Amino acid sequence: MRAVVLNGVGDVDHLRVEERPDPIPGPGEAVVRLRAAALNHRDVFIRKGQYAGIKFPIILGSDGAGEVAEVGPDVDVSWLGREVVIDPSFNWGPDDRAQHSAFHILGLPVDGTYAEMVRIPAANLHPRPRALSWEEAAAVPLASVTAYRALVTRARLQAGETVLITGIGGGVATTALVIAKRLGATVWVTSGHDSKLKAARSHGAEGGVNHRKDDWAKTLIAEIGSRPDVVIDSAGGDTFNKALDVLKPGGRLVTYGSTLGPADRVEVRRIFWKQLNVLGSTMGPPSDFAAMLKLYESGLRPIIDKVFPLEQASDAHIRMEAGDQFGKIVLRI
Amino acid sequence: MRAVVLNGVGDVDHLRVEERPDPIPGPGEAVVRLRAAALNHRDVFIRKGQYAGIKFPIILGSDGAGEVAEVGPDVDVSWLGREVVIDPSFNWGPDDRAQHSAFHILGLPVDGTYAEMVRIPAANLHPRPRALSWEEAAAVPLASVTAYRALVTRARLQAGETVLITGIGGGVATTALVIAKRLGATVWVTSGHDSKLKAARSHGAEGGVNHRKDDWAKTLIAEIGSRPDVVIDSAGGDTFNKALDVLKPGGRLVTYGSTLGPADRVEVRRIFWKQLNVLGSTMGPPSDFAAMLKLYESGLRPIIDKVFPLEQASDAHIRMEAGDQFGKIVLRI
Repeated sequence: MRAVVLNGVGDVDHLRVEERPDPIPGPGEAVVRLRAAALNHRDVFIRKGQYAGIKFPIILGSDGAGEVAEVGPDVDVSWLGREVVIDPSFNWGPDDRAQHSAFHILGLPVDGTYAEMVRIPAANLHPRPRALSWEEAAAVPLASVTAYRALVTRARLQAGETVLITGIGGGVATTALVIAKRLGATVWVTSGHDSKLKAARSHGAEGGVNHRKDDWAKTLIAEIGSRPDVVIDSAGGDTFNKALDVLKPGGRLVTYGSTLGPADRVEVRRIFWKQLNVLGSTMGPPSDFAAMLKLYESGLRPIIDKVFPLEQASDAHIRMEAGDQFGKIVLRI
Repeated sequence: MRAVVLNGVGDVDHLRVEERPDPIPGPGEAVVRLRAAALNHRDVFIRKGQYAGIKFPIILGSDGAGEVAEVGPDVDVSWLGREVVIDPSFNWGPDDRAQHSAFHILGLPVDGTYAEMVRIPAANLHPRPRALSWEEAAAVPLASVTAYRALVTRARLQAGETVLITGIGGGVATTALVIAKRLGATVWVTSGHDSKLKAARSHGAEGGVNHRKDDWAKTLIAEIGSRPDVVIDSAGGDTFNKALDVLKPGGRLVTYGSTLGPADRVEVRRIFWKQLNVLGSTMGPPSDFAAMLKLYESGLRPIIDKVFPLEQASDAHIRMEAGDQFGKIVLRI
């Protein structure tokens, strides 16, 4: 099969289209002939050497959709030929509250979806939501389970509540926008790009503020006319403090990333006096994945930024690294 | 009536026994003839000028128990003569999740319980738990509602779980110890005093570590043989970070104070990757107060450190400020 293989740490020249042996399913496994894959920031972080446990060569990619081409021993043969999306979480473990230490994600250490075929446990197969195109289906898995867990399982977002999504544009944030709207919430966003604030409005956000301007938290509260019930953030750093500041008393901050690093001078007094809830979230167990897919069965659609052919995975990486996207960046296979 | 009146900010000389007019109940109010009061760190912070909105003269004291001596218009006269404990929270508001901005606490800005009599809304009266002495009843209100909310309403502590209570010795921490034991949890503690670790063990703690020693978090995990499900902390500062470090994945940190100030370099990554819950908590609404009292109806007893006569409130303050107590410091009236 053809695959995009990462051969070393560094720039996109290390992503090369190569011929690789077709995968063979072991017991309990299936091989999926992929029709589309999608990028995640994780892929870029891995390429740039910012992940522990990197090995080469590796086929990146956590998101994929396609048809079941082959099944191994002990797998229900009725899966053969079915159209599926792949749950990229392996070994979550028995406790839905937190992943087991053996937890890992498709695309490192095991080969991922930047390829014509991928081998995965049959337990990770889910029927493709009928209304979605291949590109849309491939845009769903990692970002949507992360956004769903953050909003639903962790924040328990209710219809009529106001949610602030910081740093709109990436896969999880844009998916959180459409999920929160679908749940009946009012959505506000922040971004460093006015064009993304505009794009968010066109996808249903009530409004947004540019976080590169001073006092964005103050501006936001003035524009909303109140304070958000929920903040969904993956920036960390000083944004973590700002989130604690803007939240309504009793509000929830769901943190699912820290691209800006640790948070300094966190006002613990603000957390207890405002009775805040700071809820860590990453990925999600099979139960979250299945519940998330139901939303797509009932008409939800992910936001696609741009579709590249598999062979142009390097260009797709360049686009993600530039940070200009609004929605998921997809590879057509 | 006689009362201990605070006349200015500073040392305990500003606490003076004075004759003051007997309080008169207004509509919806009652006057309680107090039999005992109790100290809280809040009282010491106020005396030292570390609270906003201080006014003089003020009678300190949030905790009290006694007999209803008089009721105002619109109050059920059957309260007259009844033995009561006082809920010190006023104007919590309609949302149990967080207090209203008009929330305040008995003992500032309204006169408190370091006195022979106190005037309070009749809604704040609760029958005294029968098994408790006057001193024990007075030791209950502020510390117990705070500990109850932290452990039960916020952490949802379950039987069989392990809870770490940092800085054992004060009223909330020692009350949290007895409540957590009553709920069937295993309790570990930290303190800077080995004598308090010993006292905690004698009150049912499984064990504890001295937090003045390096690597106490590591020592604690080694001694427990696992990680705590819940941490209850009022230190903040670096203890906040240590708490995030020691917790089990999916665990809960309830923060109800920050005597060490803000927390620096908070590892947001640790919060999301471990799927932690950081839950702010302070005091509690009437529903928490009523639920907490039920525990004392069924045999629970607060830990009393020492009882002083009302006239020696200054000595009681000196003891609290020295930080040598284990349990509540009570004033007999």
